[in-house]
Amino acid sequence: MDKAIEFYFDFGSPTTYLAYQRLKQLHEKFGVQIELKPVLLGGLFKGANNNSPAFVPLKAQWMDIDMKRYAKRYNVELKQNPFFPINTLYLMRGALVAQEMGCLDHYVDTVFNAMWREPQNLGDLATLIQTLTAADLDAEKILAGAQQDHIKQDLKQRTNDALERGLFGCPTLFYGDEFFFGQDRIFFIEEMIESENANRS
Amino acid sequence: MDKAIEFYFDFGSPTTYLAYQRLKQLHEKFGVQIELKPVLLGGLFKGANNNSPAFVPLKAQWMDIDMKRYAKRYNVELKQNPFFPINTLYLMRGALVAQEMGCLDHYVDTVFNAMWREPQNLGDLATLIQTLTAADLDAEKILAGAQQDHIKQDLKQRTNDALERGLFGCPTLFYGDEFFFGQDRIFFIEEMIESENANRS
Repeated sequence: MDKAIEFYFDFGSPTTYLAYQRLKQLHEKFGVQIELKPVLLGGLFKGANNNSPAFVPLKAQWMDIDMKRYAKRYNVELKQNPFFPINTLYLMRGALVAQEMGCLDHYVDTVFNAMWREPQNLGDLATLIQTLTAADLDAEKILAGAQQDHIKQDLKQRTNDALERGLFGCPTLFYGDEFFFGQDRIFFIEEMIESENANRS
Repeated sequence: MDKAIEFYFDFGSPTTYLAYQRLKQLHEKFGVQIELKPVLLGGLFKGANNNSPAFVPLKAQWMDIDMKRYAKRYNVELKQNPFFPINTLYLMRGALVAQEMGCLDHYVDTVFNAMWREPQNLGDLATLIQTLTAADLDAEKILAGAQQDHIKQDLKQRTNDALERGLFGCPTLFYGDEFFFGQDRIFFIEEMIESENANRS
């Protein structure tokens, strides 16, 4: 595969978790690489003058039905997190530290699953340390690393770059130059890959 | 077919136009009835504390790409309306008059196409009269009828009933008890119909 799927994510969004699990399936099926791109959803909302759908109660109610439909469709386990909303600032900074440490994939998998499959209160420090440690991640190093100025700056910069690129929320995906918002648009990318493969063979 | 697809619509939404055209295709393909349910989108937004995505410029920009993708996918002609936003209050009241007159289907087809295929400035009275007249609709009777109190009240009531049912925007579709928001969810209904047909044969 020559093109990767760029996946802009924040752990705080259940549809982004669905996208993450669906992209793992595409990776299994097609071998396509998934490029993990941490951003701060709150920063995107603020910069784009957007808002969480959670602020529209009737919409949030419908989204719950909708997410269950997609979870079933993708055969993905998804639970509502009773501790939601959880501030994801430290978790997203942690992703940048994990990237420096070379364990980004494992960190992302661990945190996404703890947030939306188990689900845990990752806003609670003790729970977070326990979750990372249980997954053989160096919780102390990640949490200490997340306090560094260059990490804080890096997350801000990535979020600003994402806004520059036109993002207004998560999940956002790029496949080549094609821009997709929402887990429900992944099938377009799947069809593009299938068509590329068909043209190749 | 024993179940109809209930289609809550307002002419002001291009994704609702896409849904309308897609539902006509489903009617052709499966014979499923489409029940047209006029509501006032502005009233839904207000009642649900929701907002048009047009207020998030980056989102509106992406939606334009997204709608073009779906228009191509459905093989539906869709043009951006340069006169947008157009106040649809009179057009939606007109739909209720057309329903009384027994020409709802033709009225809806005419107005949707004039809004998103041609596209016309239906906020301009002369243009509206011309558009309806050209389609052999009694423009004078419809516009006069739309001023009646019981029509005004009826549109309010339907919009309130829709909020009671959980609506927060358009297009919204019900198939039996199943609630779907967005033109992009129509494939779920298509799959349900296909599965019902398979079970029957």
